Amino acid sequence: MDIEGGIGNLFANASLRRQFGNEWYYVEGDVAKLSKQNTFIGHHIMVPKEGVAIHINAFNFPVWGMLEKIAVNLLAGVPAIVKPASLTSYLTEAVFKEIIASGILPEGSLQLICGSARGILDFCQMQDVVTFTGSAETGRKLKSHPNLLQHSIPFNMEADSLNACVLGDDVKPDMPEFDLFIKEVVREITTKAGQKCTAIRRIIVPESLVEEVTIALGNRIQTTTIGDPAVEGVRMGPLAGLGQRNDVLEKVNELMAVQKLVIGNQDNFEVKGADKTKGAFMSPMIFLNEAPFEQLACHEVEAFGPVSTIIPYKNVDEAITLSKMGKGSLVCSIATASSDTAREFVLGAATMHGRILVINRESAKESTGHGSPMPMLVHGGPGRAGGGEEMGGKRGVLHYMQRTAIQGSPTMITAITKQYQQGAQGTLDGIHPFKKSFDTLQIGDQIVTEKREITSDDIDRFADLSGDHFYAHMKDTQFEGTLFTHQVAHGYFIMSVAAGLFVHSYDINPVLLNYGIDELRFTKPVYPGTSVYVRFTCKEKIDQEVKDDQDIPKGIVKWMVEILDESEEPLVGIATILTMVKK
Amino acid sequence: MDIEGGIGNLFANASLRRQFGNEWYYVEGDVAKLSKQNTFIGHHIMVPKEGVAIHINAFNFPVWGMLEKIAVNLLAGVPAIVKPASLTSYLTEAVFKEIIASGILPEGSLQLICGSARGILDFCQMQDVVTFTGSAETGRKLKSHPNLLQHSIPFNMEADSLNACVLGDDVKPDMPEFDLFIKEVVREITTKAGQKCTAIRRIIVPESLVEEVTIALGNRIQTTTIGDPAVEGVRMGPLAGLGQRNDVLEKVNELMAVQKLVIGNQDNFEVKGADKTKGAFMSPMIFLNEAPFEQLACHEVEAFGPVSTIIPYKNVDEAITLSKMGKGSLVCSIATASSDTAREFVLGAATMHGRILVINRESAKESTGHGSPMPMLVHGGPGRAGGGEEMGGKRGVLHYMQRTAIQGSPTMITAITKQYQQGAQGTLDGIHPFKKSFDTLQIGDQIVTEKREITSDDIDRFADLSGDHFYAHMKDTQFEGTLFTHQVAHGYFIMSVAAGLFVHSYDINPVLLNYGIDELRFTKPVYPGTSVYVRFTCKEKIDQEVKDDQDIPKGIVKWMVEILDESEEPLVGIATILTMVKK
Repeated sequence: MDIEGGIGNLFANASLRRQFGNEWYYVEGDVAKLSKQNTFIGHHIMVPKEGVAIHINAFNFPVWGMLEKIAVNLLAGVPAIVKPASLTSYLTEAVFKEIIASGILPEGSLQLICGSARGILDFCQMQDVVTFTGSAETGRKLKSHPNLLQHSIPFNMEADSLNACVLGDDVKPDMPEFDLFIKEVVREITTKAGQKCTAIRRIIVPESLVEEVTIALGNRIQTTTIGDPAVEGVRMGPLAGLGQRNDVLEKVNELMAVQKLVIGNQDNFEVKGADKTKGAFMSPMIFLNEAPFEQLACHEVEAFGPVSTIIPYKNVDEAITLSKMGKGSLVCSIATASSDTAREFVLGAATMHGRILVINRESAKESTGHGSPMPMLVHGGPGRAGGGEEMGGKRGVLHYMQRTAIQGSPTMITAITKQYQQGAQGTLDGIHPFKKSFDTLQIGDQIVTEKREITSDDIDRFADLSGDHFYAHMKDTQFEGTLFTHQVAHGYFIMSVAAGLFVHSYDINPVLLNYGIDELRFTKPVYPGTSVYVRFTCKEKIDQEVKDDQDIPKGIVKWMVEILDESEEPLVGIATILTMVKK
Repeated sequence: MDIEGGIGNLFANASLRRQFGNEWYYVEGDVAKLSKQNTFIGHHIMVPKEGVAIHINAFNFPVWGMLEKIAVNLLAGVPAIVKPASLTSYLTEAVFKEIIASGILPEGSLQLICGSARGILDFCQMQDVVTFTGSAETGRKLKSHPNLLQHSIPFNMEADSLNACVLGDDVKPDMPEFDLFIKEVVREITTKAGQKCTAIRRIIVPESLVEEVTIALGNRIQTTTIGDPAVEGVRMGPLAGLGQRNDVLEKVNELMAVQKLVIGNQDNFEVKGADKTKGAFMSPMIFLNEAPFEQLACHEVEAFGPVSTIIPYKNVDEAITLSKMGKGSLVCSIATASSDTAREFVLGAATMHGRILVINRESAKESTGHGSPMPMLVHGGPGRAGGGEEMGGKRGVLHYMQRTAIQGSPTMITAITKQYQQGAQGTLDGIHPFKKSFDTLQIGDQIVTEKREITSDDIDRFADLSGDHFYAHMKDTQFEGTLFTHQVAHGYFIMSVAAGLFVHSYDINPVLLNYGIDELRFTKPVYPGTSVYVRFTCKEKIDQEVKDDQDIPKGIVKWMVEILDESEEPLVGIATILTMVKK
């Protein structure tokens, strides 16, 4: 981004990247073996884009909308420019000021543009990333901006969608799942007065339960007091403005033309602690569409307020089809006590939904609900929902990084990734790596151990000590029909013997503990009489933060354990083990 | 896709998906713990999109271009429509016919449109995926097609780019890396007469070596006989047509206006076995740009033929900057013998290149070279290169699937994914799961073992048997300053004891062998006197193909091993282990 002229003097480059230089990168995925002799391999690294994230946000999440988006670009080492919707930008600005005042961010890493940012996309450069949350119409216009197309600038769009909540056909009105369903639907219709991109717009229920559901929803909605949210007892405030209400009422009229209103009334409702005629208040309104395959408005018209439609279905197949008729949504949920129904619905409907929640009694207490995107899960959806993807844990961070395939000899790829790659040149300096502190250890530090012969007696003793008398490890087994010719050593014994060979014994050393194994494969059986040895190499170092005064400064070290026998190739086994090492 | 009218009667849905139903999905990434009591978790599944892949391909790879693209959509279970460039579509058709005749694909899973496909994008639907390889100009036009925008249809673009090859400043003319560099550059200029999107358009060399490089390139290019490729000794054929040659010569003139031609001549070259005046022949032409920061044509003008420019640099920083001035490329390479130079260049330049190859003597014999995208690595690049990403192993397949976050209780997520999730209800039917064949085993089959007390004597015996006398396992260690208070059991001993508890002993059973460990974490030290036991659960089943008559029908079974002590929470350790199990 290189903004000039009217918009102001914003920064031209990635200040976070400048701060950390070339040490900020991520090694992604697995190594790719590209050659028989293993002299040529491939891998992937990801580096922070040398641009800025431009977040164009919606009015309905002035704080969360900013935070969920900047969290990932900042973690990636990319600065952000936030452009909130004008309507609610005062709140965004208040929080933004607090963030800046806290001093937790490097200068220039976060900037705010309130009001018009007309022309901002004209100044985007190829290393920038643009995200948009809002109406599909505006989103499409921005997405086709010539400058974005010209420079292949990533554009992530998250648009409102016609999300559905399904009542499983296994659920009877006296089951907990029925109540959970009713609560979830009402919550998602009334929270933020239904102005949520994840709100439930379609209530898909077995046709035999339409009446029970309508009554239960009606009863619960009656208790939703509308008014000034500052007043005690009020459960639902006004819409974000009279303009918003006008938009919603326009859509309500479109729905009204083809569907029956069964709950709520546009004119007849009470408002507590505020002037009904001045505020943008509105009653929750629920329709019933008895011909959902003919009257398609409920699948196409989004009234962005406390408005939803009950849709009857005959069987799970129909429920799946109806849920998909929204043509792409952010989230769908199903209340069911049957894991078979859950599986059938979820796998059948998944193509059209970015997230599917299963509601049942087991998870009810801790469920975060239909309307809450979670940081570890992706948020976004296909088609109408914009086709984008945000968050999702690490996935969200990687959107702000460039993936680059790298190819070369194992030694070269080791040097670039700072992760030891099989076949790379090791460093044999005669000092046992367990004697080295976390800081002193270098990737590639290596020992090749003594050999040890595995005897039948060893295997017997291990069987007795561990209690593992699996048939393959017993001398007396009839081996016909098994994969082995005679008694074979336990895999865990071989791993233990490997540790016996590579562990530097007796003396206290900087290694604090054995943390576990990332991956271990036994690749060849070890029969009595075989001698094994280990090539043991420092593979990767992961620094750990010191938590408090009591904490020992330390890091995790991953080691490559290659277990060999006299024939050397193929290996007997290979593992990546983890230790904790003192600084 | 639902093509009507002029284009013909192509299929309307994903026939592969119909064939396999809801059993074709992929569980992606790691489980997300979303609650303290672990009654509510999240995960991700990916399902095949219910549409078709539409591949709009370039003239220069009539066969490979089709194959690399359809490979991944077919693996994803999504059918494809291939639209080759008209110029070379005869070859595509010939190979296409062979594929269809082979009968290896289900009917309708692959279709071909040669000639004009005007209007094809008008019929795309939201579950389709469009890929494009070709000129950036056409690509941008297609990308902004209103129908694609309207339905958020993914569009992957791979455009030609101004790829660079760098000679590291550590390389002297008498080093193998110098020769490798010269060979690589000449190969990438002359193969397919330079009509490759990965061809080397910029030759970035230390300024002190410009003369040596020019001479060496000239010598090698002289031996490149031009003519009819069918004639013995010919190394370079004509361009793909006179139209292509005209385009290239136009661009050559643009380059000529600001750079010096140092190798080759537009008019003066010999053609073997063909009529020079009739064929689209052309001589390799190499320019020298001595002011690459002022004269920018070499970074912007792509002559899609055997044309390249030598660009001098002063230091690695300048080489990085120059390589980036192409504003996004598919591939860049560097010839260097120094791993420090490789690391500095690759991490510095990675933001602007989809792939970076390190050329050195170690990998020379097996290197697949600058110009070859590999199936396991991503192909694509930012900015000018289109911003797309193809192939990359599994990554390429996932482009044709919808990622959906799923949330629910561990039991529900287990039912949906058919992967046992920690905390889900297990099946305790009293039959040891090692007695069950691969087919009989069900996800969730579980045993809870007896308890075993770990004694100090056990630990001593394990230390002696394994040879692992790490200080933490020795009675006599002074434990002050360590993480432990006294002698602690070896992690691998605990894992071995766990096996002793969960392995069904002595009798031969359907379990063929212990295959390895996917992940193991030791989460709590085990001191003498502690009793441990195991909750052992069938986690996942992966079917294996029978290779030949000798092969035993079998699959891999993953098991969750939860090791507990009397306090139950937190666990002592957790592992996913793998066995091979007979059908």
